[in-house]
Amino acid sequence: MRERSGCPINLSMEVLGDRWTLVILRDMMFGNRRSFRDLLTNSVEGIASNILAARLRMLLAEGIITRTPDPAHKQKSTYSLTEKAIALVPVMVHLGAWGTAYLPVTPELAIRARVLADGGPALWDDFMDELRHLHLEARRAPEAGSVLDRLQRAYEAVAGSAGTGRHTP
Amino acid sequence: MRERSGCPINLSMEVLGDRWTLVILRDMMFGNRRSFRDLLTNSVEGIASNILAARLRMLLAEGIITRTPDPAHKQKSTYSLTEKAIALVPVMVHLGAWGTAYLPVTPELAIRARVLADGGPALWDDFMDELRHLHLEARRAPEAGSVLDRLQRAYEAVAGSAGTGRHTP
Repeated sequence: MRERSGCPINLSMEVLGDRWTLVILRDMMFGNRRSFRDLLTNSVEGIASNILAARLRMLLAEGIITRTPDPAHKQKSTYSLTEKAIALVPVMVHLGAWGTAYLPVTPELAIRARVLADGGPALWDDFMDELRHLHLEARRAPEAGSVLDRLQRAYEAVAGSAGTGRHTP
Repeated sequence: MRERSGCPINLSMEVLGDRWTLVILRDMMFGNRRSFRDLLTNSVEGIASNILAARLRMLLAEGIITRTPDPAHKQKSTYSLTEKAIALVPVMVHLGAWGTAYLPVTPELAIRARVLADGGPALWDDFMDELRHLHLEARRAPEAGSVLDRLQRAYEAVAGSAGTGRHTP
């Protein structure tokens, strides 16, 4: 008989323990993909539309993302990260660092993980503030540079030298 | 068509993206459970034996754990974490902190996550050294106190006041 447990690792894996959930959140965080169509058609890993739909429903139910309908197009919606999702940035950073250290990553898809890991907690905080600005309408200090722009420039420097044109995770 | 991708988040979730894998590694890390029987019968979440067997096979194949046969009992083995598993400690810490902040954890099962998160990178390094000592036969500096003992005392202080006798995640 499977039992419930209130252990934080167990509860976290009940929510996130799935091959696709963090990959979808990655595309929303790092690729600023906000629509079903953008998440589906630009998926490097080729996520199936029924799986994407099911995971978005779960993320909505868990309060990890929100959906705002487009008043002009009944079938179009914009998805946004909540604070609960933005709080996963340090998990993403450490998971990215672990993957980069131990798994067969490709250089141009790993460079952003490297820049974030090397930047340390101060850079993660800046990135989380930028995500709050993009997803929660929070104001940012005007002097803060865009972390997404910095990650994109790092990607282009590596992808350019590797001769590939793909620009998202 | 699903494609492979060399993104570190994607590759990490191909390995770890499953409801049980990190829960098994949690029990090896924090409960020092080293045998199939111990992992099975002391599982708070009641893992099924076929799932446990399949995940241990995968972890062995990925080089995340090793198995040492017991010379006296052909069917008994001791499982140990590798450096690749010990490198997941910061992921565990941040996942535990996220779960503690956002999910309905029980106090006695969350106290170790809190102590580790509050301890910061210095405590995680000490814990990783202790795991190297327990699993990789690495020597530790003798002045370093046991992080596992510290976590256990914190657990007992909370579990005692909550009136429960369970002592592992």
